[in-house]
Amino acid sequence: MRCLKTGLLFCLLLHAILSLGQEHPGLMITGPHLEALRKGTVQYPLMKKAFAAVKQRADAALATAVNVPVPKDGGGGVTHEQHKKNYNSILSCGIAYQITQDKKYALYVKELLLEYARQYRSWPLHPARKPGQEPGRIFWQSLNDFVWQVNVIQGYDMVYEALPEQDREKIETGLFLPILKFFTVDCGKTFDKIHNHGTWALAAVGLTGYVLNKPEYVKKALNGSRGDRRSGYWAQLDQLFSPDGYYAEGPYYQRYALFPFVMLAKAIHNYQPELRVFEYRGNILSKAIATALQTTYTSGLFFPVNDAIKDKSFESSEIVYAVNIAYADMTPDPSLLDVAQRQNDITVSDAGLKVSAAIAAGKAVPFRYASLWLRDGQDGKKGGLGILRSGSNNDQQCLVLKATSQGMGHGHFDRLNLLYYDKGNEVFYDYGAARYLNIETKGGGGYLPENESWAKQTVAHNTLVIDQHSDFNGDAKQAEMHHPELFYFQNDSSGIQVMSADEPHAYPGVQLNRTLALVPVPGTERPLVADVFKATSAGQHRFDLPFWYQGDMVNTSFPVHANTTALHPLGTASGYQHIWLNAATAIASQSGFVSLLNDYRFYTTHFVTGNALEVKLVSTGANDPSMNIRPGRGFLLSQQGSGTIYFVSITESHGSVDPVNETVSGAGGHLSGLRMDKGTNGVRIFFSVDRKDYELRLDYTDKNNFIRLKQL
Amino acid sequence: MRCLKTGLLFCLLLHAILSLGQEHPGLMITGPHLEALRKGTVQYPLMKKAFAAVKQRADAALATAVNVPVPKDGGGGVTHEQHKKNYNSILSCGIAYQITQDKKYALYVKELLLEYARQYRSWPLHPARKPGQEPGRIFWQSLNDFVWQVNVIQGYDMVYEALPEQDREKIETGLFLPILKFFTVDCGKTFDKIHNHGTWALAAVGLTGYVLNKPEYVKKALNGSRGDRRSGYWAQLDQLFSPDGYYAEGPYYQRYALFPFVMLAKAIHNYQPELRVFEYRGNILSKAIATALQTTYTSGLFFPVNDAIKDKSFESSEIVYAVNIAYADMTPDPSLLDVAQRQNDITVSDAGLKVSAAIAAGKAVPFRYASLWLRDGQDGKKGGLGILRSGSNNDQQCLVLKATSQGMGHGHFDRLNLLYYDKGNEVFYDYGAARYLNIETKGGGGYLPENESWAKQTVAHNTLVIDQHSDFNGDAKQAEMHHPELFYFQNDSSGIQVMSADEPHAYPGVQLNRTLALVPVPGTERPLVADVFKATSAGQHRFDLPFWYQGDMVNTSFPVHANTTALHPLGTASGYQHIWLNAATAIASQSGFVSLLNDYRFYTTHFVTGNALEVKLVSTGANDPSMNIRPGRGFLLSQQGSGTIYFVSITESHGSVDPVNETVSGAGGHLSGLRMDKGTNGVRIFFSVDRKDYELRLDYTDKNNFIRLKQL
Repeated sequence: MRCLKTGLLFCLLLHAILSLGQEHPGLMITGPHLEALRKGTVQYPLMKKAFAAVKQRADAALATAVNVPVPKDGGGGVTHEQHKKNYNSILSCGIAYQITQDKKYALYVKELLLEYARQYRSWPLHPARKPGQEPGRIFWQSLNDFVWQVNVIQGYDMVYEALPEQDREKIETGLFLPILKFFTVDCGKTFDKIHNHGTWALAAVGLTGYVLNKPEYVKKALNGSRGDRRSGYWAQLDQLFSPDGYYAEGPYYQRYALFPFVMLAKAIHNYQPELRVFEYRGNILSKAIATALQTTYTSGLFFPVNDAIKDKSFESSEIVYAVNIAYADMTPDPSLLDVAQRQNDITVSDAGLKVSAAIAAGKAVPFRYASLWLRDGQDGKKGGLGILRSGSNNDQQCLVLKATSQGMGHGHFDRLNLLYYDKGNEVFYDYGAARYLNIETKGGGGYLPENESWAKQTVAHNTLVIDQHSDFNGDAKQAEMHHPELFYFQNDSSGIQVMSADEPHAYPGVQLNRTLALVPVPGTERPLVADVFKATSAGQHRFDLPFWYQGDMVNTSFPVHANTTALHPLGTASGYQHIWLNAATAIASQSGFVSLLNDYRFYTTHFVTGNALEVKLVSTGANDPSMNIRPGRGFLLSQQGSGTIYFVSITESHGSVDPVNETVSGAGGHLSGLRMDKGTNGVRIFFSVDRKDYELRLDYTDKNNFIRLKQL
Repeated sequence: MRCLKTGLLFCLLLHAILSLGQEHPGLMITGPHLEALRKGTVQYPLMKKAFAAVKQRADAALATAVNVPVPKDGGGGVTHEQHKKNYNSILSCGIAYQITQDKKYALYVKELLLEYARQYRSWPLHPARKPGQEPGRIFWQSLNDFVWQVNVIQGYDMVYEALPEQDREKIETGLFLPILKFFTVDCGKTFDKIHNHGTWALAAVGLTGYVLNKPEYVKKALNGSRGDRRSGYWAQLDQLFSPDGYYAEGPYYQRYALFPFVMLAKAIHNYQPELRVFEYRGNILSKAIATALQTTYTSGLFFPVNDAIKDKSFESSEIVYAVNIAYADMTPDPSLLDVAQRQNDITVSDAGLKVSAAIAAGKAVPFRYASLWLRDGQDGKKGGLGILRSGSNNDQQCLVLKATSQGMGHGHFDRLNLLYYDKGNEVFYDYGAARYLNIETKGGGGYLPENESWAKQTVAHNTLVIDQHSDFNGDAKQAEMHHPELFYFQNDSSGIQVMSADEPHAYPGVQLNRTLALVPVPGTERPLVADVFKATSAGQHRFDLPFWYQGDMVNTSFPVHANTTALHPLGTASGYQHIWLNAATAIASQSGFVSLLNDYRFYTTHFVTGNALEVKLVSTGANDPSMNIRPGRGFLLSQQGSGTIYFVSITESHGSVDPVNETVSGAGGHLSGLRMDKGTNGVRIFFSVDRKDYELRLDYTDKNNFIRLKQL
């Protein structure tokens, strides 16, 4: 008897030793901060609000019966939505249990997980399969299973201590251990892939390994299934981000990819601080988060380059997590608090506690938007995304030059694309993806056919199209093989800010360079936006440079005689088939202007070319039988030529309309007389502002004096 | 010497007696409230902000030289803008003087007015003349002169006591007395006209009469130049508003017309309280202000019926004045304080003081939007504007039925037009006026040709068009002679809210009735919008019912095969020439639906007719050579028939899209199976909500049971 007792004691002791350092909860919420966090949900407004939302979701879950259906439906279907709901319930109830200490929440999680544990092993691969994707068991694609587990394991961690040992046993044996095997073995190919699906897989496995105290799985997650670090977390951190933390697919996907990276980093930081995960690769995670924020405009919306849903902003939950952890565990930059305030949401967690306390203490300062060049490519040598900004966070001009690599399957054929924002709004915009996300009636909520035929095509962007063909003739493989090069970047905010990039491969035999600058000139209300697009080739070509704009066109230097009795498409392919031609005007003088009125401010784009110029006013929607393309308007500058041709434009942001007092001021702007003079080394651009004459000179042969402005 | 002294004393005494009761300032600011007002500019946030803005304008004026140019330019020109600036400076400096008691402000007003006094009499009628308008002397139309004087006399009143007697003498003799003569004699016709230009003229004369203590001019302003009250202020109050305070031209012009009415009322109230101006005609001014507010949506924007600039809201200064005076001098309704808060502006005045103090004391309650029928016509017998509302001020459904008289020259041919708002947005909208106000490059900022050819035409609205002709064949004189009739109105918020109107004259031989209702049905998220348009005629006609919508069309019950390679206009006249036909589908079943997604909420309009039905998807912009018409999209229901035909539709507001969390819910809605059954007395409408069947019955012969809903 005594022996038995000793044996039991030994067993318990052994278990304690094995679990050494194993505390629950141990991920987003940890024991040492629990008391403060509980107080924080009363004390700090943002935390109070966030917890109220969590508790509401938890209470809503408790009001419904446990429902674990056998997986059957694809995305959007009944069983799909129920399993999504279940992981949200598990996470919300887990948090609610830790904060309120009310066992009813833990009980609900227990019942749900026991039900999953009873069934999981009997589920085969999901009967509905998403075409081209690896199937899951709970969902139609394995990615959804990974996401499910990343959430569920957190909930489990929070109720762990409230569950009887034998229930934990059942749950781990029936559910989590089989899941670990499924993810690492059955889905092994994805698990070892350097790709965001792989990141989700290893985050799920790593988090589960920590919570279940299975170091072997943690090792797999960090070092790859073979343990050679050619795959796994470290390898992904090495390869998926550029040295500046830019993610090749673009900001919309960067946001999505960031979440599993950050979640697993937090777990590593908690359980194995000696690995110094946040310092890895020169603080790469911190850079990735900063880059995600810097690739938004002041509206909070991500720059919608490549396939992007345009209303996605830094309010999304991935960025809430990232900002909380960046502030709490990486660098307590008070300008992150401004972002958290504007997110108006916080994670109910250790990290969220620090953020909400700091905000309540008034530590927030305005987020510091920067002008910067974000290098693309694992080695930072595959072009990049240029961003220039001027003005306060409340009224900021922002120019974006897309000179990144293709960005894989979601990339658009839009080398040297320009985006221009001002006063919180898009002025020259990117269409983003042709997709109504989750709207079943619009192509099942997926990418529409017009994403290929329109949204990806060059002419759908504000960049040069040659001979009515898209970049790389629309061939993604070709495009993936080449990238633009940074030519020049200068963000000295005291003078001219400029970014310039070369694209030598997009069109055979044609060298492209685009230079965008913010040029402060006395007498103008804001810096002028200078845009110099240069193309050099031996042969004769037609060059089209579209500007897709928001707002109303209220003035032009040339007569507009729009087609009145019929509209026809501008072309037959490469996106031109989707454009209606409203009006075309030949401009003998080779120069002119267009004025827009957008949100009560005027924008006048003066333009000049060295050749006969034609301006076409266009709108979207041709060859669109299901009316999938959103209405949009643009003006398209067109010239034919050979040798070196230029499109030079200067856009002035000016004047205002006061709708309350019904007054208008500054409708005419200050700039006039734009002309250009081609030289052998570059171009001289002349214009007047309030009767003072200026020369803006670009010398492509002298990087020390690439751009100069002088008053004449 | 002594005699001389006595004489002087007698003169002074006589002057004092003549000025008896004459206090300065005596209009918007009066002596007894001055001390409190000065404190208020420090004490109450809104007043502090408002005064800071006034002072900024005053200081800006002081920083510029006195500039009184000889009138030369038309609207928008240099001298025009300078004289506008001057009246604003005079008013701002007058207020700044009273609050700060710093004489520099008074001095600036004095110098400006002395300069005007030196020149005014030498100015002939303005050399530029606005076509068809009576010329002024300072401006190209007399209306601008009236507005100038309404502002200037207030500024003069405020600095009156600071000016030496001899300067006042010069200003009055050289400027104000000639102005009084000019307005009442040279502009006598306008002065005696029952029209908003006349209101401005008499307000200028009345205010000036009070300030200068010239009772004979006050009398002219109140009783008309002949003194017979057939013109003048009382006559205008009698004739320009309906008994419900509705102004025939519509809300946009009501706002403008209200200002001189309110300003003169305030002066009458101060100087001749015995006239009980605010009680006149059953508190007509109070009703007019209430009606101006009730003809806005929760966004603050006025319903844009007739010629209206769509971004005009109750933030405009006219409504700021009106709300301040309504609260301070008419009825201290705390829901007006909510409006003042949302205006975020206040007049620096006695009235503004009361409002800002009450707001600071936390007395504001949410503005009480009502469902109501606003009678039109002097006698209230010329139709009216119907408004139904449901929901909170943050998420309100609002239906408008335009069944008013034509509304004079600015009226549109849109009898029984429907507007539908929800969640702060337009859903089915009115185009408003085709005009870019004050944008010189767009037709001088005036009404564009497309205002006549498009905006006023019936098909530009959400109402019935017969045989492709507009109401009254677009003849304004004919339209002015007839008006719709209220058939039924019920705003019992506990059940169905309904409004129904007849229009027997718009089309010869056709009786029109439209019934709009908000119908609460269990299981729907908000009341359903029922729309029953009935037309009865002997002959065969084509009936078109357009719905111009905001948002994206995301689903239809019928296949859409949009025109892909060419667009052509829908017709040749009556506005049809401005519509591109995108797609047309014949619907054999006579019923179907269209789903819109607008600001993350779905709207599904189910429709049914008793005849073969065609749905046309359309957009604006055909036959628009200067591209003056804003882009817009609509769906147009079309049927041919004789006898009694119906268009029955039910619009459900449902579901949501969460762009942050990328989720969609309730995209399908709850309603299905819409059908109708024509009877001799009316129509029975059948539909299902969540598998429960309902009948909505309209009986046009039984007003006691006009509309009934029952579950089957």
